[in-house]
Amino acid sequence: MKYIDLNCDMGESFGAYKLGNDEEVIELISSANIACGFHAGDPNVMDHTVKMAKERGVGIGVHMGYPDLLGFGRRDMDIAKDDLVNYIIYQIGALQAFCKKHGVEIQHIKSHGSMGNMSYVNHTVADAVTDAILHVLPDTKLFVIANTVVHKLAVEKGISVVREVFADRTYTNEGTLVSRKQEGAVIKDPEKAADQVLQMVLKGTVTTIDGTVIEMAADSICVHGDTQGALEIVRRVKSKLEENNVTIAPVGKWLT
Amino acid sequence: MKYIDLNCDMGESFGAYKLGNDEEVIELISSANIACGFHAGDPNVMDHTVKMAKERGVGIGVHMGYPDLLGFGRRDMDIAKDDLVNYIIYQIGALQAFCKKHGVEIQHIKSHGSMGNMSYVNHTVADAVTDAILHVLPDTKLFVIANTVVHKLAVEKGISVVREVFADRTYTNEGTLVSRKQEGAVIKDPEKAADQVLQMVLKGTVTTIDGTVIEMAADSICVHGDTQGALEIVRRVKSKLEENNVTIAPVGKWLT
Amino acid sequence: MKYIDLNCDMGESFGAYKLGNDEEVIELISSANIACGFHAGDPNVMDHTVKMAKERGVGIGVHMGYPDLLGFGRRDMDIAKDDLVNYIIYQIGALQAFCKKHGVEIQHIKSHGSMGNMSYVNHTVADAVTDAILHVLPDTKLFVIANTVVHKLAVEKGISVVREVFADRTYTNEGTLVSRKQEGAVIKDPEKAADQVLQMVLKGTVTTIDGTVIEMAADSICVHGDTQGALEIVRRVKSKLEENNVTIAPVGKWLT
Amino acid sequence: MKYIDLNCDMGESFGAYKLGNDEEVIELISSANIACGFHAGDPNVMDHTVKMAKERGVGIGVHMGYPDLLGFGRRDMDIAKDDLVNYIIYQIGALQAFCKKHGVEIQHIKSHGSMGNMSYVNHTVADAVTDAILHVLPDTKLFVIANTVVHKLAVEKGISVVREVFADRTYTNEGTLVSRKQEGAVIKDPEKAADQVLQMVLKGTVTTIDGTVIEMAADSICVHGDTQGALEIVRRVKSKLEENNVTIAPVGKWLT
Repeated sequence: MKYIDLNCDMGESFGAYKLGNDEEVIELISSANIACGFHAGDPNVMDHTVKMAKERGVGIGVHMGYPDLLGFGRRDMDIAKDDLVNYIIYQIGALQAFCKKHGVEIQHIKSHGSMGNMSYVNHTVADAVTDAILHVLPDTKLFVIANTVVHKLAVEKGISVVREVFADRTYTNEGTLVSRKQEGAVIKDPEKAADQVLQMVLKGTVTTIDGTVIEMAADSICVHGDTQGALEIVRRVKSKLEENNVTIAPVGKWLT
Repeated sequence: MKYIDLNCDMGESFGAYKLGNDEEVIELISSANIACGFHAGDPNVMDHTVKMAKERGVGIGVHMGYPDLLGFGRRDMDIAKDDLVNYIIYQIGALQAFCKKHGVEIQHIKSHGSMGNMSYVNHTVADAVTDAILHVLPDTKLFVIANTVVHKLAVEKGISVVREVFADRTYTNEGTLVSRKQEGAVIKDPEKAADQVLQMVLKGTVTTIDGTVIEMAADSICVHGDTQGALEIVRRVKSKLEENNVTIAPVGKWLT
Repeated sequence: MKYIDLNCDMGESFGAYKLGNDEEVIELISSANIACGFHAGDPNVMDHTVKMAKERGVGIGVHMGYPDLLGFGRRDMDIAKDDLVNYIIYQIGALQAFCKKHGVEIQHIKSHGSMGNMSYVNHTVADAVTDAILHVLPDTKLFVIANTVVHKLAVEKGISVVREVFADRTYTNEGTLVSRKQEGAVIKDPEKAADQVLQMVLKGTVTTIDGTVIEMAADSICVHGDTQGALEIVRRVKSKLEENNVTIAPVGKWLT
Repeated sequence: MKYIDLNCDMGESFGAYKLGNDEEVIELISSANIACGFHAGDPNVMDHTVKMAKERGVGIGVHMGYPDLLGFGRRDMDIAKDDLVNYIIYQIGALQAFCKKHGVEIQHIKSHGSMGNMSYVNHTVADAVTDAILHVLPDTKLFVIANTVVHKLAVEKGISVVREVFADRTYTNEGTLVSRKQEGAVIKDPEKAADQVLQMVLKGTVTTIDGTVIEMAADSICVHGDTQGALEIVRRVKSKLEENNVTIAPVGKWLT
């Protein structure tokens, strides 16, 4: 049987501020990346999101970010490695406590925003992310984009990785995402997005923006739930996978 | 053999801001109340403080506070119970992660500042503190002032308590602290402070501000390390206890 | 000619978090209470909101709050008077700078959330609000609920006041708002809200929740824009006032 | 008569956290760079620092920083230009309000930490700093290091500049500061620091780390007050200047 994971960022609300359609999207996915109060999220939101995920059997992930609520963790910050290790450990622990309360375990780790982007290309950030994991959660699974700096470092350090691909983004011949600044970077048609996902899941390939077919291994599909258009893509990806007998399940349940 | 615990607030520095004389005081005490980033402390400070405490066999405690760095957690905030439960769980988890990193366990919980003061008299705050403990750390020990609201509630809920007394504060005939606004509230003479502590530890009594002797059970002595005067009191309390064959040790080692 | 002011809280978004329908509501009102970054709002939002208000001739007000973004300034905080004076001065100055940029003046001051509620009943808070005004913006107009502590103190100190009433809330015979915990506290029917407003504006009276008619002077009507239901009330209030030849204009233009 | 300005960072305390020896250093300098609550400082500290500066005739400067209290504004953050303009305007306004309260005017602007360093080399940051000034305080004086990006841009935009030099740092032949990573970067001997300052002030030259004499115009000397060693340097610099009949005065009093 063929398995795939669908992951989505969740728990990004803060105090009186609501972000995303968590109640809708949680019904469609198998893994939730939960913000931990640095770039988004707060203790109440974390509690609620862990509870929702647990009730639906959705895998729970630490979605840690830079300490920049005002910038939503999307701005690069030049943080020293040891500081960053500690920021990540702190966020992991905070989420773990809510998992303890709800009797569930953390399944995975995914870096948010600029921390994620930097971990693909910057050795210091990748080193901090992987060291933090070794310190406090060595058996977790780390979401990575294949062949990036953090991917290689995680493998070197013996950390399990989950290769993540995107439903609504096109790829270059090098296997990287086409820049959002370039035309055709984003796939808005749910059918096309679902087709791309199916090809990645069943054939392990993707057709790049210029029509070339390249290899693209996928363990988890990153989807979004913040707009109605995004939700439609998730729904079509999900139904298409099911029509083709692919089982959507948390990576923790099937990926070794 | 007679045992007593000496506890002190630690890890209250933040970023470039240094507070307290942690390096000196850690050598004198047996339990450290470590700030968790809400009213004071940051991930680096937490990491460093847990490491120091572990190396010296000092018991580690969660010193959680209100989310008010600007007010150092000393201002009352009217926080809903469920929110407060989650704020506390979050802080417990954050500190636990650093304990995990350093291979040590949390020994105790102590509410900081206004949260602590409110827990003595306010049922909602006391209820939140004790519920948070039951959710994620039910076997911990909660520091309380004897006969307060939080003390009674903790006992009702089956939580182990540590009865805390103060070396440098005088008591009323009702067994409460003399208000700082009143003359004679603070004991500045190290010898007098040490005498008061010895009486509490050996006889289970305290001589109140008007000379009456009342019962006062003590499991842990709260001391301070933020000034040189405070450090001298700790040194004299420690030496006097040792001269009288009282063993200073973390409550987790001897209190059942 | 009869004048009235319609005021609404605005500029409450923060970073990636959007709150309210400022673009819609700004077209309907005459005065905007703009958050200043403590309980809500950020420098970008303040800049944008001042610009929008200026372009439409909407009066600009400082909507200062407690330093509690997580609680949206709605939780009581026990802040010392001198501290609160400085928190308010800081927020006034921040908004003034954006007014300077856009070539417009601050028209009024309104305390947000818990600071507002406390200023009605607590002398310390009321004293801080009015002292802050005297220090840096003595000629501004302070929004108050009539006959409250802050109203009396402002008058004593020679500060101009704007008596604010509510379109969508019912009143007690004492002229205070019916508690939200009580049935009938909130008016949801736009027509009824508009009728209440018209009565207050034209007759200077309000019919209380038990049918009694009491005096109720109104300089500005507080409306909300955060839900579609709220927007409909604003629209009906506005049209009803215009049908009855009441001119909606910023208090700074007509109130002496 | 020969004039020079001595400037120092001040008002960097925050809540319960004290930083620097403001009370001592304010007696020695002629211009104070006052933190505005983003990287350091809080409303109480700003109020107190403006009051102290005013009483001693010390020139008041906005010392604005990145929104990173945890990193003390010393970490580079990739902030979009328009956001940065607004962050600076906000901080200027906040300080202006305290100046209003104390009946004094802002004399100058100086970017703190990473914002300052970036403004020397990065066009976006330099553009933001200078645009913010043009928007709200066009007649102020901007502290710059000579011949940097922000210096040139400020001159282009018609902003008055103050060329700042350092008492306790050595210079390269290019007129830039020797990196702190390099030996000899920091001058610890008060006499040597005072000699360097006197040479810069009287001759307009500096002897670089390899002994070359280059031109170095100086309008203001940056000094530090955070350690006793730093304070001794300030005292010697001050006395040496006075012995040589150089008048220490705020740039606003004499620099055209």
